[in-house]
Amino acid sequence: MITALAGGVGASKFLDGLCRIIPPEELTIIVNTGDDIHMFGLYIAPDLDIVTYTLAGIVNPTMGWGIDGDTFNCIDSLVAYTGGERWFNLGDRDLATHIYRTQLLNEGRTLSEVADLIRRSHGVAARILPMTDAHTPTTIVSDEGDLHFQEYLVRRRAQPKVMGLRFENIGSAKPAPGVAEAIRQAEAIIVCPSNPLISIGPILAVPGMRDLLKQTSARVGAISPIVGGASLKGPSDRMLADLGMEVSARQVAELYSDFIDIFILDLQDAELTFEIEKIVSEVVCTDTVMSDGEKRTALARATLAALM
Amino acid sequence: MITALAGGVGASKFLDGLCRIIPPEELTIIVNTGDDIHMFGLYIAPDLDIVTYTLAGIVNPTMGWGIDGDTFNCIDSLVAYTGGERWFNLGDRDLATHIYRTQLLNEGRTLSEVADLIRRSHGVAARILPMTDAHTPTTIVSDEGDLHFQEYLVRRRAQPKVMGLRFENIGSAKPAPGVAEAIRQAEAIIVCPSNPLISIGPILAVPGMRDLLKQTSARVGAISPIVGGASLKGPSDRMLADLGMEVSARQVAELYSDFIDIFILDLQDAELTFEIEKIVSEVVCTDTVMSDGEKRTALARATLAALM
Repeated sequence: MITALAGGVGASKFLDGLCRIIPPEELTIIVNTGDDIHMFGLYIAPDLDIVTYTLAGIVNPTMGWGIDGDTFNCIDSLVAYTGGERWFNLGDRDLATHIYRTQLLNEGRTLSEVADLIRRSHGVAARILPMTDAHTPTTIVSDEGDLHFQEYLVRRRAQPKVMGLRFENIGSAKPAPGVAEAIRQAEAIIVCPSNPLISIGPILAVPGMRDLLKQTSARVGAISPIVGGASLKGPSDRMLADLGMEVSARQVAELYSDFIDIFILDLQDAELTFEIEKIVSEVVCTDTVMSDGEKRTALARATLAALM
Repeated sequence: MITALAGGVGASKFLDGLCRIIPPEELTIIVNTGDDIHMFGLYIAPDLDIVTYTLAGIVNPTMGWGIDGDTFNCIDSLVAYTGGERWFNLGDRDLATHIYRTQLLNEGRTLSEVADLIRRSHGVAARILPMTDAHTPTTIVSDEGDLHFQEYLVRRRAQPKVMGLRFENIGSAKPAPGVAEAIRQAEAIIVCPSNPLISIGPILAVPGMRDLLKQTSARVGAISPIVGGASLKGPSDRMLADLGMEVSARQVAELYSDFIDIFILDLQDAELTFEIEKIVSEVVCTDTVMSDGEKRTALARATLAALM
């Protein structure tokens, strides 16, 4: 049994590769829900959906999110009603997921129950768990004031200067059912190449999570999302810099150094190996840029080889 | 000021004609909400939407409901999630209305407030009021058991034998704000050519409504939806027959005879005039089959001429 900690697009590419080399039913994915947001009265869980759609083989391959070939008719009309700007794209097929999830949540089902129904409905064999059933939205404290992470990322295109992060309600959140067991009982744990601050960060901030990772007997490996001093996708690099941190794979390793055994970084960053070996017991250099399906599989293979 | 009582498709065609010959802002439409149904956690108000879309000029002209040129991608995915049959068509643009309405209702707005926001958003100048802000779904008591009206009409295509009707919660319902004033202060009141049992019937069943219609100083006219012993659209004829009533314009007149001053029936039914004059003081024969825009206007003109 393998357990992965995942954000959205980068993680999903890696997990897609992983599911091609292991029986997917042996994989449990703990997904960030700090990006979750209520829009138009619907509960939207971007990372859960990205992981589910990717493993279901229906994700829009260009964007890395949403459903391939989806239309955008409903959102246009919704925006017309509400008189706002259309800063968040919700496809018509994708909306079915949000409507279905919202209905079940309003009927009293938990987010983890709903995530399970949705991934099964899409024929995804890997287990997909939200990090918590609580709603713990990530607030970006910025020079434009407090912004929901989606507002910061999507509406404001990560332009505001990040001064801090707040994971709302995280203090009272519990790991979702199955999360603790998945960490305790795993043979290997993988921290996917996701934004360490706002994808993996919220997962680690759920009370008890970091201790579970420190205490598990499984080996824990993390893959750097920072390559050559920049993030492959998303605002990790800018956020690290804004918060006064080094924009490097070494910085990512440092953020995880209390619970990881292995750090996997790109060949481009090979010269950092020596520095990272001071804080993580094993460092693996490999090609981490998943520019095609084969490279996804290769990275998954290299990661497993290091862990098992 | 003109006030109309309306169901869905037939009423909307007439109201479209009416709005072409009077300033639409002088029209108040009291709409049946007995067809309203919760689906996928969304609050769907078919007759309110048909009236709104028709007067906005965006209704699907073939169906008489839904939005012209709409796509149906979300509903397919929703049905896939819920594992049911797709017996109810909800277009992607149409869904925006249901999502928006549901959000506002969940935030504590009333159905009449929401109906007003929606019609204004579509640039409809006529005032559109639900008959009540309460949820009073129509149950069809049938030989297949109790069915929500939409299940009876859409899913079972009006095949079950109707043994009775029940307007749930109607006893505690109140006319929506503005309804009583619109009846009291109108110069003329028109009962649109809608199903007398399940479109106009629920409106009349709201406590106080029938008395308002009896007591208003306005002249009240009704247009028969039964022409030549059959309904032009929908299951009125079958339902009347199932319930042991005559399938005729005369029967419709009888159902309204305690509060109408004028009954308008089709030229095809001219021979019923004498019988109907026994129960309604004035009877007008005219072409009521609104097969094109001109005929809608002509019927509206004939109706107004009789009433004013």
